[in-house]
Amino acid sequence: MLQFWHLARSASTQPPDVVISQSAKLLPIQTVAKNIGLLDEEILPHGSTVAKVKLDVLKRLADRPNGNYVDVTAISPTPLGEGKTTTTIGLSQALGAHLKKKVMTVIRQPSQGPTFGIKGGAAGGGYSQIVPMEDINIHLTGDFHAVTAANNLLAAAIDARMIHEAGATDEQLFNRLVPEGRPFTLPMLRRLGQLGLAGRTRDQLSPAERARYARLDIDPASVTWTRVMDTSDRFLRDIEIGRDPEARAKGCARQTAFQITTASECMAILALATSLADLRERLGRIVVGVSRSGRMVTADDLGVAGAMAVLMKESARTATMHPHAPPGTAMHRHAPPCTAPACCSRVVERFHDHQGPGGRLGGRRSTIMPNLMQTLEGTPAMVHAGPFANIAHGNSSVVGDLVGLKLVGRDGYLVTESGFGADCGMEKFFDIKCRMSGLRPQAVVLVATVRGLKHQGGGPPVVAGQRLPKAYTSEDLGLLRRGLCNLERHVRNATLFGVPTLVAINYFPTDTPAEIELVRKAALAAGATDAVVGRHFSQGGAGAVELAEATVAACRRPSRFEYLYPLEMGIKEKIHTIATRIYGARDVKFAPAAERKVALYDRLGLAGLPVCMAKTQYSFSHDPALKGAPSGYTLPVRDLTAAVGAGFLIPVLGAMQTMPGLPTRPAFYNIDLDPATGRVVGLN
Amino acid sequence: MLQFWHLARSASTQPPDVVISQSAKLLPIQTVAKNIGLLDEEILPHGSTVAKVKLDVLKRLADRPNGNYVDVTAISPTPLGEGKTTTTIGLSQALGAHLKKKVMTVIRQPSQGPTFGIKGGAAGGGYSQIVPMEDINIHLTGDFHAVTAANNLLAAAIDARMIHEAGATDEQLFNRLVPEGRPFTLPMLRRLGQLGLAGRTRDQLSPAERARYARLDIDPASVTWTRVMDTSDRFLRDIEIGRDPEARAKGCARQTAFQITTASECMAILALATSLADLRERLGRIVVGVSRSGRMVTADDLGVAGAMAVLMKESARTATMHPHAPPGTAMHRHAPPCTAPACCSRVVERFHDHQGPGGRLGGRRSTIMPNLMQTLEGTPAMVHAGPFANIAHGNSSVVGDLVGLKLVGRDGYLVTESGFGADCGMEKFFDIKCRMSGLRPQAVVLVATVRGLKHQGGGPPVVAGQRLPKAYTSEDLGLLRRGLCNLERHVRNATLFGVPTLVAINYFPTDTPAEIELVRKAALAAGATDAVVGRHFSQGGAGAVELAEATVAACRRPSRFEYLYPLEMGIKEKIHTIATRIYGARDVKFAPAAERKVALYDRLGLAGLPVCMAKTQYSFSHDPALKGAPSGYTLPVRDLTAAVGAGFLIPVLGAMQTMPGLPTRPAFYNIDLDPATGRVVGLN
Repeated sequence: MLQFWHLARSASTQPPDVVISQSAKLLPIQTVAKNIGLLDEEILPHGSTVAKVKLDVLKRLADRPNGNYVDVTAISPTPLGEGKTTTTIGLSQALGAHLKKKVMTVIRQPSQGPTFGIKGGAAGGGYSQIVPMEDINIHLTGDFHAVTAANNLLAAAIDARMIHEAGATDEQLFNRLVPEGRPFTLPMLRRLGQLGLAGRTRDQLSPAERARYARLDIDPASVTWTRVMDTSDRFLRDIEIGRDPEARAKGCARQTAFQITTASECMAILALATSLADLRERLGRIVVGVSRSGRMVTADDLGVAGAMAVLMKESARTATMHPHAPPGTAMHRHAPPCTAPACCSRVVERFHDHQGPGGRLGGRRSTIMPNLMQTLEGTPAMVHAGPFANIAHGNSSVVGDLVGLKLVGRDGYLVTESGFGADCGMEKFFDIKCRMSGLRPQAVVLVATVRGLKHQGGGPPVVAGQRLPKAYTSEDLGLLRRGLCNLERHVRNATLFGVPTLVAINYFPTDTPAEIELVRKAALAAGATDAVVGRHFSQGGAGAVELAEATVAACRRPSRFEYLYPLEMGIKEKIHTIATRIYGARDVKFAPAAERKVALYDRLGLAGLPVCMAKTQYSFSHDPALKGAPSGYTLPVRDLTAAVGAGFLIPVLGAMQTMPGLPTRPAFYNIDLDPATGRVVGLN
Repeated sequence: MLQFWHLARSASTQPPDVVISQSAKLLPIQTVAKNIGLLDEEILPHGSTVAKVKLDVLKRLADRPNGNYVDVTAISPTPLGEGKTTTTIGLSQALGAHLKKKVMTVIRQPSQGPTFGIKGGAAGGGYSQIVPMEDINIHLTGDFHAVTAANNLLAAAIDARMIHEAGATDEQLFNRLVPEGRPFTLPMLRRLGQLGLAGRTRDQLSPAERARYARLDIDPASVTWTRVMDTSDRFLRDIEIGRDPEARAKGCARQTAFQITTASECMAILALATSLADLRERLGRIVVGVSRSGRMVTADDLGVAGAMAVLMKESARTATMHPHAPPGTAMHRHAPPCTAPACCSRVVERFHDHQGPGGRLGGRRSTIMPNLMQTLEGTPAMVHAGPFANIAHGNSSVVGDLVGLKLVGRDGYLVTESGFGADCGMEKFFDIKCRMSGLRPQAVVLVATVRGLKHQGGGPPVVAGQRLPKAYTSEDLGLLRRGLCNLERHVRNATLFGVPTLVAINYFPTDTPAEIELVRKAALAAGATDAVVGRHFSQGGAGAVELAEATVAACRRPSRFEYLYPLEMGIKEKIHTIATRIYGARDVKFAPAAERKVALYDRLGLAGLPVCMAKTQYSFSHDPALKGAPSGYTLPVRDLTAAVGAGFLIPVLGAMQTMPGLPTRPAFYNIDLDPATGRVVGLN
């Protein structure tokens, strides 16, 4: 995140993030795993500083009590971000390397959109980073690429199905889908079962049943599934596809869009699934639109969910034969445990890979397995699922937290973060992620910066890559005071959920004692359990010891966690509740498109799902220009979509975009290979 | 490739490809590497059955003579393919596991388009496969995803630059690109150098020079760079992007397309680059279009080539510290070699990673490193770069062949394949790949099937997933005889290049002795050194021993290899030469768009590049319906594009599409996870 930090901190002579990362001393990932209590056979190394963690560990530690569950959130951010990830990591380093607590950090994998676009990478910053930062920022273990591939295979399947149905009779369609002499395949048997036709052979199906099986009759206007790409490419926000003569002739040209990969429902499913089997089921439940007769059309109906699961399961293969097979010999994949104590466990692992429920996770890396890495101070960290709490739910994976809380145990700490401001990521962390996982948080750490509060107070625009205006680099108590209302509302909102809330003031060298004192007082007055300055960007864990101690204290307080709304509430009521109680709106206005969707989702029996607002992160409201703590306004709901596989409805507020763009000077302008060494430079 | 094989061979009770692969006995990849003479420190394992091969080995073996270089090609294929990859692997198994020759197989990584679309995977078939077939068919080490990401980052950069230039004065544009107080970055210094402004500081640039640096003034109509996706998605063949109000207002809506990833110039660059440094330079040279004043605009001009190189370099990180560091301790990344003999070499590897030219390839996996795997019989195989010799050059990587030829040495054999029929992949193998690598082939193995020749003789349509018409499964000498002209011309074309050519008849159980004899006679009459039946699909290497012996014999003959045309020839002449001498056309007709491009590329000094025809694989001509060996027709050149980074011009013939579509019943209908075991089923 150097791109903006070094501007804000031009005084400091601190080296760039990538240089700090490249010159770091790293532990072998096997050591990181052992130190946190993972068995050799519970990790699948991917190189020597990253490993996939097998979910089998959940079975082994089922009876161990969970550790303290801490969510790091923030005030409404500037386009530069206020250092939430950096604070999450600095706090973890302080808890683990300085206070000697058992700790696990769980954050989201950065998107390559911002990494090469406006904001830069998201591996933390300065001396609070997850390393190697090149790995976390670029490809990592390929989870995002797998999500992209699965999402886009479904998208291609939808349009292909529509054009092929357009030109065929029911019988032709059935015969193409199930040619004579071909057996029904697993995806076909699944749909037959859902149609109540299980057990029938091809020839036992009546013409009417063949038609029911073969024709989905998707209403093109109802298709809500879009393609995705992990690149910031604003020109794909609104596109027309199928303009080639044949598609046109069949009336298949249509308007659609690309979203950034992190906004894919497949990413939300990865984040919320609790096992590979659950992942497969959720993919099958994805609703892409409705038929002309108004029935939901799912990925299972299209016969593509199995292939999507395969795309999201398979990654690099891991050992499937005896590791010590002498050169020239070959051992069968199902080798029985060998007797040499030294490698017995590894063979047992492989043996287990194809046995029992744990074994279903397989001997292969899978996107459902969290990626284990380490912080600059050697504490363990997991990186899993995607960011963007404005257009997605923006939280790291449920499995990451489930595994981490067991590993740290009763007296340990799991520090995770939820995206953007508390109105975005934290509300979704509580009402969606915690609801689905059943986990209960002990404390919230709310990150505030003097810069961010001045921005909320009406300060001049903050532009990535540009020098910060003077208002942000010199004392301005008046401007800061005008922005405090933003902090106060976020603190009150966090306490609304019954969770002890602590404010972390992320320190900049240009902050003055008077400014910091002003922020502290406001935080405490608003109900924070404490307000502490963190100097972890420049000092690492040592700069966050006081923050760590305050976090430990906050976790000792009783947490009376409760959700903001019950699922039984109607769709509009849920939206209204979040709008009024969290965003400060007076009322909610539903556009006609949104009204139609509410009625549709009610009719389809989806009203019981929680809602995941798609909303700007720059304001409590739908309007990025409304700074501070706006109230009395009407919140416009432009549209709604349903993420049935993920398990929530998505109201789209105002002009919210789900595909970012590139600025005139994108972050990629800093990035290259050093011609002398071949090393990466300028990544931050 | 079971999807069609098991139909063609329904008699056989052979298990599906994926089952054969999953129950195979595998060697640890370290053993495969050792057996072919790779040192431990020359591979970077990715799991235990795949490894990246570091190009350092080329330095170590620089003085070793190359082995025999064999290209496997084919007749004009049916949509099912004629088993070229299967033959390549079966022949390799016979040479290595049965004739005990040193052998290396080098094939292309399959595209996920066909894997989930029409043709199925491409890891070979039956008992001639590269395993694990799930790995090679799905993600492998992520090379394709890296190519996709690099390609699409450039695409986003082009449109973003056009819209940002539209709204800004020269001075505004310069100040946004190079904000006051920001130093020039590596990508900027590169462009400054190319503009003859090296060494200047920001303030030393005159307004005119700032304008020259900042404004690319791309002519939107000239942009030939497209986005790519590794999914068969025909609806992206012709799209309109930038339809959102702001882009429209700035006149930035435009028509463009997606190609499949394998057609990306980035893929060709991966296949043709000889080092990471060469890769970086080629990416920088990519021409995306021309300015309104007619200058070429490159990826380096856009400042994005460095980031593209990083995306194509970084993959999973490998060890950078002492592997045996005791728990809790940490070793510096530049740890000196330890003294324990057991692990010395591994530390030396890491030590080398950041030293010297070899070290430039780095301690990280890179897309430029070939992926080492193994065949079902344990012989070594490398899988690298993309297929599709119709719309791309469709050959595996130059580095793969350079490494393989050194590893097998003088008496060894490197067996590679070129895509589709010999008119497509083989011509490009000779005139593009061999020209760039400087390597000289010893023999060509041309794969023919009775089925394919009957199809060329005017047989009924062959449709993936459908039962083969009777004409293909019962003797029909008349139909077969009418198709032999296709084989004959391919054989004559291969010998045109002065390379001994052998015909491999890929056996199907339904082939009759009379049919096979007919093919044999025609092959020998056309000038083949021999014509041998291969039963490797059902018997593995044992079924290809005779073919292997014939290949050894062919390699003993003198090869008088020469290119079809010299680079000095004009663009039109080159196209005319291939059209008349290889395709049998009488003449070539250039559409106005093509004429304009020829003139443009002449003016831009690109006439010296070889040409890479984009042409259907189903006919020697541009028209898939013209079977057999058509002649006397006029070949229409619809358009031309320039792949300056890859180093060739691409004439587009007839209605050629660069994005495949999905059939009514795509291959994904067969694919799922077995609910009981979590294993992949139906992949083939």
